[in-house]
Amino acid sequence: MAKKVAVVLSGCGVFDGSEIYESVITLLRLDQRDAQVTCLAPDIEQMHVINHASGEVAEGEARNVLVEAARLARGDITDLATAGAGDYDALIVPGGFGAAKNLSDFAVRGAELTVNPALLEFARAFRAQGKPIGLICIAPVMAAAICGTGAECTIGSDADTAAAITASGAVHKTCAVDEIHIDRDRKLVTTPAYMLAGRISEAAAGINKLVDTVLDMAS
Amino acid sequence: MAKKVAVVLSGCGVFDGSEIYESVITLLRLDQRDAQVTCLAPDIEQMHVINHASGEVAEGEARNVLVEAARLARGDITDLATAGAGDYDALIVPGGFGAAKNLSDFAVRGAELTVNPALLEFARAFRAQGKPIGLICIAPVMAAAICGTGAECTIGSDADTAAAITASGAVHKTCAVDEIHIDRDRKLVTTPAYMLAGRISEAAAGINKLVDTVLDMAS
Repeated sequence: MAKKVAVVLSGCGVFDGSEIYESVITLLRLDQRDAQVTCLAPDIEQMHVINHASGEVAEGEARNVLVEAARLARGDITDLATAGAGDYDALIVPGGFGAAKNLSDFAVRGAELTVNPALLEFARAFRAQGKPIGLICIAPVMAAAICGTGAECTIGSDADTAAAITASGAVHKTCAVDEIHIDRDRKLVTTPAYMLAGRISEAAAGINKLVDTVLDMAS
Repeated sequence: MAKKVAVVLSGCGVFDGSEIYESVITLLRLDQRDAQVTCLAPDIEQMHVINHASGEVAEGEARNVLVEAARLARGDITDLATAGAGDYDALIVPGGFGAAKNLSDFAVRGAELTVNPALLEFARAFRAQGKPIGLICIAPVMAAAICGTGAECTIGSDADTAAAITASGAVHKTCAVDEIHIDRDRKLVTTPAYMLAGRISEAAAGINKLVDTVLDMAS
């Protein structure tokens, strides 16, 4: 039986949505391992739109997280509000600023972050049902909110972000870009990816291990 | 010495730009093979914007090909108008409707297509300099324009598209999704990818072979 994996996206583009390389590497590895994948996103407005050529905010422009995430899913996207953890064996959330701007407000509030209510309910149910969760890149800023105080996770080597992780109630673990950290008690798997990666093949090395480990943990 | 490869993008999203999976698989394989990659795009308006969740045209919305392609390049994008083939050893163009809507007007004019002038000049120079060119998915509709009458290429199994390829002056070659066709005289390599692929790992199988072959042909 194919394992059913929910991949939650936050838009399409590193500066205001899901990091595209991390998301596609995740989807490719899941498919190579014969998982049955569903891409989901919240039907909400993005915090803002970033012109990825200039790096500037595109003033006056608005985009919807679900609609942009659909680009990363070739149109096959599910509204997170309609989904239940009972339909899946595992959850993976790629990184990109969308995880800190749309799925949570970490980019604005730091350690005092709140998580999108639909995602929080969805993700906590995986934890409650003993199902594995993989968080990539900056997505582990939501580790304590989802998996509880003491959740162990990676964030790369940025001191301020690591301090914010600690202040949020999680435990920061140092981890190389091509490695993962496993919190076995909570079935939480994390990898730094583009928090550290200088090139796409480095990000792929860690993400492939994360996907393999999450699938091995899923029953 | 690392081989320098130009990857020309047409936006970001299968229905109005570059096919994201094909583009990322191309970039990942190039990096795994230690190529030095430059992503380029024309600084022009997209033909239109498609809401990828609904499949409908987003009326009144406009996006720029270069700006959206920058999402696929994590911000590191070069204006095609400023680029010269002399700086690169090979050229690859991923698919997606952007190749038929923005890089060319095949989606509107079929066999009577014209190719974006900046791309046509850039790509023909690779051909003139004896450098390999890889065209993925629907991008081979530009094969005759770039490589001349008689250029052999794949397009999948769609009879209408194959007929249009033939009418444009190219020679259509049947090819499995996980294979490539090589026109050795013209150093042109093509693969069907999402013209045939039912899943991302199938597209990856053909694209990885295309990238490897283009790199092996590049001096």
